[in-house]
Amino acid sequence: MSLEQRKRVEVCFSPRQFELYSKDFDICVVIDVLRATTAICAGIENGIDKIIPVATVEEAREYQNKGYIAAAERNGEVVEGFSFGNSPYAFMNPELKGKSVVLSTTNGTQAIVKATAIPTVVIASLSNLDVICHWLIEQHKNVLLLGSGWKEKFNLEDTICAGAIADQLIESRLFRAEEDSTIAAKFIYRSARENMFSFLRASSHRRRLRRLNLNEDVKYCLRPNTLTTIPILHNGALVKLNYVIENAL
Amino acid sequence: MSLEQRKRVEVCFSPRQFELYSKDFDICVVIDVLRATTAICAGIENGIDKIIPVATVEEAREYQNKGYIAAAERNGEVVEGFSFGNSPYAFMNPELKGKSVVLSTTNGTQAIVKATAIPTVVIASLSNLDVICHWLIEQHKNVLLLGSGWKEKFNLEDTICAGAIADQLIESRLFRAEEDSTIAAKFIYRSARENMFSFLRASSHRRRLRRLNLNEDVKYCLRPNTLTTIPILHNGALVKLNYVIENAL
Repeated sequence: MSLEQRKRVEVCFSPRQFELYSKDFDICVVIDVLRATTAICAGIENGIDKIIPVATVEEAREYQNKGYIAAAERNGEVVEGFSFGNSPYAFMNPELKGKSVVLSTTNGTQAIVKATAIPTVVIASLSNLDVICHWLIEQHKNVLLLGSGWKEKFNLEDTICAGAIADQLIESRLFRAEEDSTIAAKFIYRSARENMFSFLRASSHRRRLRRLNLNEDVKYCLRPNTLTTIPILHNGALVKLNYVIENAL
Repeated sequence: MSLEQRKRVEVCFSPRQFELYSKDFDICVVIDVLRATTAICAGIENGIDKIIPVATVEEAREYQNKGYIAAAERNGEVVEGFSFGNSPYAFMNPELKGKSVVLSTTNGTQAIVKATAIPTVVIASLSNLDVICHWLIEQHKNVLLLGSGWKEKFNLEDTICAGAIADQLIESRLFRAEEDSTIAAKFIYRSARENMFSFLRASSHRRRLRRLNLNEDVKYCLRPNTLTTIPILHNGALVKLNYVIENAL
């Protein structure tokens, strides 16, 4: 396919830059590897019916008061008054099967709320990397990969995941990238992929979670392709997209 | 030196993130490799007395009306009514020796104006890489490296230059980095340094300047260590810092 016919795939490092990048995209892929979007993918794959992302803890509390199951995390810790935060293991709890869960996190749910400016919003993590790439290639629309970052700043793990998706899409020769941020993300991913865990050893959020004894969560979040589910935003809630990879592309 | 005693060196990718990073730094190093800060370094080294950075073209015009020599660039081109923009070769014109020049550019001078929130502001480019690193190491203060980016977005060439400075400072073992942006910049620099010109081939601004037939400017801007001057902001104007490397560190 000629360069002009290809669709665009670009990386936006954090919600702070979203307005600079958000024009002319059909699909926004939200990424918060440590840990919100990994937890969302794991929860939906393990049978949660709906996850309702909300930006503030107050909104989560209002839902809780109406009888909803609600989860909230700030700065890596479960917010007081909530029984869980954004640990993927908590989202795999069999008691949540068929239920709706409201979720507010430091970065990920804020990014999802911003992303709604783009018509279609889906959720990615390293856990569902290949399935999301397959689906995006089949859609063949302009894709913005939005890292959640850390408090509006750039972070490494979301950039690596975005770079991994951009790399697969560009390699299909059906997509092209124009932005320097996309070139950089792809490049960082290619250098990190052999040993992501050690590459991320120095990253700021890894250090933060290590202090909180969350190393098991981190290991789960950095393992690629353990899941085959794509959560998609539908009427304000994340639900399972009906999609199965039928043939390798 | 123990990690705690080390001073910080961090990279901020573009003026859009400046407020997220600007606290607790003593020195801000502004970088706009293509081409504003390269032109400023070349101009000051070649005898321009003062360069007055202004954010808007209107301000540049007001100075011009008062009889100042003024230069203005937008989107890579000289603004109508100005005799030059931000080509480093224009700043080496012998007729400018001993003169003051007012300058407004798309990205670089905007970044300089923002940087004034930090007590000391100096100017870097690949052209004066080693001298600025020597000087920063001697100062041993907290350093923020501010890329000018492209219209508030991340760009590759400023990130590579910032990564090169961060790398030298961290290698001295007198500085440490905490932010993921700094880890990423250092990493991108290390991968690009063997062949910067080809690494940047795909970069968005290179493409932009190639269309404008500015390849000679680009070659000059990407050549490291052709200059030994550090421009420093003093009472709103960039002047030559009185500094000569006396001994290798």
